Amino acid sequence: MERVKARTLSGFMELLPPQQARFERVKAVLEETYSRYGFTPLDTPVIEASEVLLAKAGGETEKQIYRFTKGDSDLSLRFDLTVPLAKYVALHHNELSFPFRRYQIGKVYRGERAQRGRFREFYQADIDVIGDGALDIINEAEIPAIIYQTFTTLGLKRFRIRVNNRKVLNGLFAVLGLEDKAEDVMRTIDKLEKIGPEKVAAILTEDFGVESNTAKRLLEILATGDPLAALEPFQGKNQLFDKGVEELNTVVRYLGDFGVPADHFAVDLTIARGLDYYTGTVYETVLLDHPEVGSVCSGGRYDNLAEYYTEKQLPGVGISIGLTRLFYVLQEQEMLNEELPTAPTDVLILPMTEDLSPAVAFATACRGAGVRAQLYTEPKKFKAKMNYADRIGVPFVAFLGEDEVHSGVVSLKDMRSGEQEKVSLSSAPKWLKERVAALNIGAPVKE
Amino acid sequence: MERVKARTLSGFMELLPPQQARFERVKAVLEETYSRYGFTPLDTPVIEASEVLLAKAGGETEKQIYRFTKGDSDLSLRFDLTVPLAKYVALHHNELSFPFRRYQIGKVYRGERAQRGRFREFYQADIDVIGDGALDIINEAEIPAIIYQTFTTLGLKRFRIRVNNRKVLNGLFAVLGLEDKAEDVMRTIDKLEKIGPEKVAAILTEDFGVESNTAKRLLEILATGDPLAALEPFQGKNQLFDKGVEELNTVVRYLGDFGVPADHFAVDLTIARGLDYYTGTVYETVLLDHPEVGSVCSGGRYDNLAEYYTEKQLPGVGISIGLTRLFYVLQEQEMLNEELPTAPTDVLILPMTEDLSPAVAFATACRGAGVRAQLYTEPKKFKAKMNYADRIGVPFVAFLGEDEVHSGVVSLKDMRSGEQEKVSLSSAPKWLKERVAALNIGAPVKE
Repeated sequence: MERVKARTLSGFMELLPPQQARFERVKAVLEETYSRYGFTPLDTPVIEASEVLLAKAGGETEKQIYRFTKGDSDLSLRFDLTVPLAKYVALHHNELSFPFRRYQIGKVYRGERAQRGRFREFYQADIDVIGDGALDIINEAEIPAIIYQTFTTLGLKRFRIRVNNRKVLNGLFAVLGLEDKAEDVMRTIDKLEKIGPEKVAAILTEDFGVESNTAKRLLEILATGDPLAALEPFQGKNQLFDKGVEELNTVVRYLGDFGVPADHFAVDLTIARGLDYYTGTVYETVLLDHPEVGSVCSGGRYDNLAEYYTEKQLPGVGISIGLTRLFYVLQEQEMLNEELPTAPTDVLILPMTEDLSPAVAFATACRGAGVRAQLYTEPKKFKAKMNYADRIGVPFVAFLGEDEVHSGVVSLKDMRSGEQEKVSLSSAPKWLKERVAALNIGAPVKE
Repeated sequence: MERVKARTLSGFMELLPPQQARFERVKAVLEETYSRYGFTPLDTPVIEASEVLLAKAGGETEKQIYRFTKGDSDLSLRFDLTVPLAKYVALHHNELSFPFRRYQIGKVYRGERAQRGRFREFYQADIDVIGDGALDIINEAEIPAIIYQTFTTLGLKRFRIRVNNRKVLNGLFAVLGLEDKAEDVMRTIDKLEKIGPEKVAAILTEDFGVESNTAKRLLEILATGDPLAALEPFQGKNQLFDKGVEELNTVVRYLGDFGVPADHFAVDLTIARGLDYYTGTVYETVLLDHPEVGSVCSGGRYDNLAEYYTEKQLPGVGISIGLTRLFYVLQEQEMLNEELPTAPTDVLILPMTEDLSPAVAFATACRGAGVRAQLYTEPKKFKAKMNYADRIGVPFVAFLGEDEVHSGVVSLKDMRSGEQEKVSLSSAPKWLKERVAALNIGAPVKE
């Protein structure tokens, strides 16, 4: 037979079982936390009509899209979860209740140039709250709590949520007489962390004709250690600015009630997060010990989710975690908690009798008690069986020989300690359940 | 602005939030049950190199495939989860431990002609046990238990697992002198349920030249009420047959120990399940009250999982549930348990004070206690707020006015009974948690 070489496409993450088990734990934390905050799970198609998916797209994004025809249909794979959400909300508007809170964790596709740590198929994990015509500021204030809870439950400790408000920035530009240069100034400021204040000042003055005094003043405000105080002198001069400061103050004010410790949060006036889309609070999240990774959870407030599909105004606020990328980083940085079991089963049952009935019945009892159980009945030598147990990393092995069966017991070996104990068949499932539960305590990340 | 009409492609299931919540429950049962039997979760790419994915495919399947080029790459979307598994096992053979037990629940793509109840994107939920060179029969005997447990946990009661063995059929054909017609006979028998024994007999004799006595005898054996007894007289005449009967007897023998009640199981000699692939036990599962749906869980034993990729012999046994199709049927037949809550939140918190701090702190306390909580702060009339609560189907609403805040209590309204109660702020999360847990008891399907 002619054979084809088995391979997986580059840029597509395919994990071995232990890593997959760790990935599932991380994903489960996101699902559980998002649910806790009242978001409903959605699942939209991976394929959409190109006309629908690309209503807005253009430039770099469009080039990366997986687009093809099938029969007469021009189809594309989704490249994010926001456009499908916009389509969903526009299409099902009358059947939804607003504010509409949804989470979606799903694969998206971008044909980027393959390089280490960059993926063409990757999970995004998004939440959005969509209002119908209006959306209360408390929804923006709640987002840092969701980010904090998600990362804390994952086991991360050293991270910071940075927040800014686009109204504050745009208002400030107006007050400083930079209204007509707002977009250029915003784009330049976005580079502050990368190129530093001197270079930003140079670009502002030389390229965009900002007066050097104004550039200096702007950079001073942005760099201040106490942003809310630094903004105070500008109050009352511009409506947009005042509204932005009010929003920022509301976000900060409720942090404590939302359970976010002050040291995990910072107002940072230099955060712009792109140019057009966001209109209010914007968010970034950085791992303090891995700034090179960039923001691991970002988002913001927008005014029109679905303007390409409907005349209805649908403001919202949302954040996104690049789950595949985050998992890759955690793996690379050896931050995944290696102590948690990754075996597909809690107990490997080794029957030592011809008649397998007692072993099968014991497996059935374990499963009924919520213990994951696997029967190993391949005709191998004892050593090979124990090797298998070692290789899959199973925490417990159960031996059932004639002696055990006659005495109504099972020999249970704790593979970590090496200790072995005879336990009555009837109480063994509970014995296992308690010990397995103890082994599974702990967060997926160890920092 | 020029707008695009929002639409979802036909043949792609996109659910509204309450139905999605029900779908998630069904999916969770499959994940949980598969795990209980010691299967590890896998997640392979949706896109594969066409050369790899289509190594085996041909005919009808190949026509349905979503295939396209991106740059220089000839790519295809997976059309099942078996070919990706074969690739995975061949590619990672040295890093896996055998028997390798994996489950995968993922979307697959087939460009079938769109019609009601047929999907182009749909979830399959597969389990497979793969051996390296050999695989013990107990793995085949365990499959009915997994099917039984899965469907029972879903809440289904009236279903039957039908089992046959391909060795028995092929051996029987040989004993009856039909060896050289085996494939034609098998294909004809596969139609028994559809066209009845008379027509099958006619096709066998007229089209394939089977002697009418032999056809009659074969059909008698297949139609018998006690298949294992009917097979006995043929023992000792054909090695393959004898081996098949032994396997079938082993599968039947351990049913009880595996916890499968006799009335949910039947040996059915008429089940063939396709032609080439399967070599031992084969399985079908039918809903007794909905035979028109066909088999909702099928599979069998095969000898060579990955022969297109490797010379290693990798026998296995697996089953597949067409999850999207099953969910569609359950929905159509109104078999989904409507009593289980589908709201994205357990409690909707309505603050009645200017300062939102107490409401935010209460939401935080609920979430900390594992209660899903949503703050509703849109500036709407009381009636509109309660309408929202009704529409999302939230089981509890929490009112926090000045009175409540001063007394350290919260008014909790049970939306099902209409009863309202004042509960101290500190004990309210526990109060909610207990009641919410009680509401969520029950299987996703009500039969």
